Amino acid sequence: MATMRITVLSGGVGGARFVRGLLHHRDRTDELAGSEITVIGNTGDDITLYGLRVCPDLDTLLYTLGEGADEERGWGRAQESHAVQAELAAYGVQPQWFTLGDKDIGTHLARTTWLGQGASLSQATDRLAQRWGLPAKGVRLLPMSDVPVETHAVLDGEEAQEAVHFQQWWVQMGARPTPARFVVAGMDRATPAPGVLEAIRGADVVVLPPSNPVVSLGIILSVPGLRDAVRGCAAPVVGVSPLVGGRPVRGHADVCLEAIGVEVSSAGIAGLYRDLLDGWLVDPQDPRPSAPGSRWTTRAHSSPLLMSDLEASADIAAETLRLAQDVRR
Amino acid sequence: MATMRITVLSGGVGGARFVRGLLHHRDRTDELAGSEITVIGNTGDDITLYGLRVCPDLDTLLYTLGEGADEERGWGRAQESHAVQAELAAYGVQPQWFTLGDKDIGTHLARTTWLGQGASLSQATDRLAQRWGLPAKGVRLLPMSDVPVETHAVLDGEEAQEAVHFQQWWVQMGARPTPARFVVAGMDRATPAPGVLEAIRGADVVVLPPSNPVVSLGIILSVPGLRDAVRGCAAPVVGVSPLVGGRPVRGHADVCLEAIGVEVSSAGIAGLYRDLLDGWLVDPQDPRPSAPGSRWTTRAHSSPLLMSDLEASADIAAETLRLAQDVRR
Repeated sequence: MATMRITVLSGGVGGARFVRGLLHHRDRTDELAGSEITVIGNTGDDITLYGLRVCPDLDTLLYTLGEGADEERGWGRAQESHAVQAELAAYGVQPQWFTLGDKDIGTHLARTTWLGQGASLSQATDRLAQRWGLPAKGVRLLPMSDVPVETHAVLDGEEAQEAVHFQQWWVQMGARPTPARFVVAGMDRATPAPGVLEAIRGADVVVLPPSNPVVSLGIILSVPGLRDAVRGCAAPVVGVSPLVGGRPVRGHADVCLEAIGVEVSSAGIAGLYRDLLDGWLVDPQDPRPSAPGSRWTTRAHSSPLLMSDLEASADIAAETLRLAQDVRR
Repeated sequence: MATMRITVLSGGVGGARFVRGLLHHRDRTDELAGSEITVIGNTGDDITLYGLRVCPDLDTLLYTLGEGADEERGWGRAQESHAVQAELAAYGVQPQWFTLGDKDIGTHLARTTWLGQGASLSQATDRLAQRWGLPAKGVRLLPMSDVPVETHAVLDGEEAQEAVHFQQWWVQMGARPTPARFVVAGMDRATPAPGVLEAIRGADVVVLPPSNPVVSLGIILSVPGLRDAVRGCAAPVVGVSPLVGGRPVRGHADVCLEAIGVEVSSAGIAGLYRDLLDGWLVDPQDPRPSAPGSRWTTRAHSSPLLMSDLEASADIAAETLRLAQDVRR
């Protein structure tokens, strides 16, 4: 291996921990010195609360890579307080089902202020990333699009269907019931953010980390032009299954897959990427590590695909890069 | 005395402490049982910071009357934390010269959310006042106007004059230098908020508490139609000098008076109200308790005009009401 340009499409916690492992692997590996990592973050989870623009996946990436995340929860800030939201509750301001810590609100206020001054989401994300030291770590964070898009879960009602914001369905309703489908408000007029297509086309490897295949990676890939870029790029595209022992480690990937009629299995998930996938890393306990007739190479990791600590995450990232080298077109 | 309708024009700390004393006096005095107090608050100090609408005088009134104020400072919330602003500073968001605590930000977020939903400032203030128990205490808080107005200090520069937002001049610049004048952006299209003129016309007594005569009471009285209402109302208009021993207790009333060319004395301040004042309560140590030819009655309080505690404030309020009774037209 040598200096590489690595582009990762990422949702929140799973993707962020993978990228942190990738950074650690790069920094412990001489041949990878100087390798540049570009992360394209999902913004379909974004929501405006109390006038504040909240970008949960971008923030999880910033906090995790900047060593400011709450390790227990995986999202939000460490040593967080909740004075502001307690006041909002006292004033009866709705909604109260989304937890915003005080430090986290600082991020949203900064972003919202800059957006209000005319900055794009890319520019605002760039400024936030400065504070978290991402440029110094050789990692660049791009939102998938500067156009606001918001995923909604379409739920069957007694008389009609209703579209509920993804966060409301995920957080307040606990990802129940299984949606009839997902729709993404704003996606029809979305374009990839500046640098996104270039980061894919210029990559030496494109990675799909263990993020939610439907509401994270599926949303990123549905930005007009983005999937085509991944499909058409010269670099190998390798993915890491989000399933350990056949089940999602966290989150509700199973419900999301059920909503779109895809089997909850590594093979089922890989099938979602069938037009672009070259290599697929799965858990050693995965009950069905390969789909019949798949054109991608499936490989089982040597230990559980669990990003339990930094070393484990780095080992998964290392194996992903090795797989990319082996399947190089 | 009997049940009264008392209307108070108020700035921040001085007015808020006076009204708290007035409430205490009412509640300890049988004949005043059921008296209703309406406070018309200055909104000329208002400022939008990080997209949040901040109303310092209204908030000081809410917090002080709701027993949530920081007693030491006089403004802001008790037991306050500053996690949000520390984050904004870390992100390099400007300005940093205005202190916003976390609990305080909760108030501004609630207000801004409601304003963004189409509520007027009166309606937003009403909702905030509910939480602080003002209706239950028999006190109503009205902003002087629902139209955003912002006081600016006009400063002489080397080549030209520049207008600086009141808060920037007051907080960041420490009320230096003495402005050439004050201008109020938005005042030309301002109207009294709903209920303001009615509260003045229907009052049994109108009180000018020891608030800043220039940038608090002066601003309230300059809302088109408001001064006329006070001048024309049937009730006695009584004021309390903000000077103790010839000097302002806090704030920068002296600089503000200098800016408009008025002597820093109780007589000088009373002269600002010459067209509407019936009674004027001054400090016993006031060097010049009365102006020659004044048509109002000046009376010295029995002890220093210092609202050092609740009882002292209540005694000043009591004396103010007695003076009103004595000068009743």
